[in-house]
Amino acid sequence: MIVLGIDPGFTVTGFSVVSKVNNKDAVLDCGYISLPSSKSLDIRIGIFYAFLQEKIKSNNVTHLSIETPFLGKNVQSFLKLGYLRGVLYLLANQHSLQLHEFSPREVKRAITGFGGAQKEQVGQVLFMLFPKLPKPKKEDVTDAIAISLCGLWKNH
Amino acid sequence: MIVLGIDPGFTVTGFSVVSKVNNKDAVLDCGYISLPSSKSLDIRIGIFYAFLQEKIKSNNVTHLSIETPFLGKNVQSFLKLGYLRGVLYLLANQHSLQLHEFSPREVKRAITGFGGAQKEQVGQVLFMLFPKLPKPKKEDVTDAIAISLCGLWKNH
Repeated sequence: MIVLGIDPGFTVTGFSVVSKVNNKDAVLDCGYISLPSSKSLDIRIGIFYAFLQEKIKSNNVTHLSIETPFLGKNVQSFLKLGYLRGVLYLLANQHSLQLHEFSPREVKRAITGFGGAQKEQVGQVLFMLFPKLPKPKKEDVTDAIAISLCGLWKNH
Repeated sequence: MIVLGIDPGFTVTGFSVVSKVNNKDAVLDCGYISLPSSKSLDIRIGIFYAFLQEKIKSNNVTHLSIETPFLGKNVQSFLKLGYLRGVLYLLANQHSLQLHEFSPREVKRAITGFGGAQKEQVGQVLFMLFPKLPKPKKEDVTDAIAISLCGLWKNH
């Protein structure tokens, strides 16, 4: 079971690949991709698809884990987030990945034990779990690690 | 120049392929697809992608034409519509289609001359333009024909 967790966004998409290695949780790969705002929407979506498809193949991913979205202040951002989510559903279908969604509260509760935790607390727990992990440059990567762990733990 | 027009929706997606044939507008293909509500979201999105990819290939489509969305009453429907639109952007990228979006007002104005026209009026104009066209079973097909014509006329 190899779980890809995604925190999708046009500015920054965080990703994380986790699995059990010798019966211990392990982060196999993580990072982020920025979609160039100078390019048209269809090119950015094509880059997003190709990047994650490569991650799915190279890591032999079996499960996909994403956060359920909520409507923020900006309706256009919400719609555009839907574009990326549609691509994630398509990738799940094309690569026969089991897909699970978690609400932001579920993610926080799974990691810290408390659904109302701050983002910083989620990060602190993750660095205790994976002390050797380099501190991610983007918060979105930390979020993706948390989301991927939710998927891993749900199925164990 | 061969234009695919799409009116996307999970219940019914209307599509239309139009082109100039002997210097006259012609509907080469049109119809709709219903995504089975009994299936999971990723399967429905996979069906949507595969269906339209086949239409793009078999008709040698060069341009994609879609309506700009507006936020209706239901936020979840709006988000899910975004999933399908994301897949359309991806198909445009993967098949090098030129993509144009039109607002509902632009579509109505292009067809009837009046942006505030009723849907029925749009349909009436289309049947005058294409008297041999069988009456579509779904309003979404009529909408797709109108959207595809916008794309065709924009570039001539």
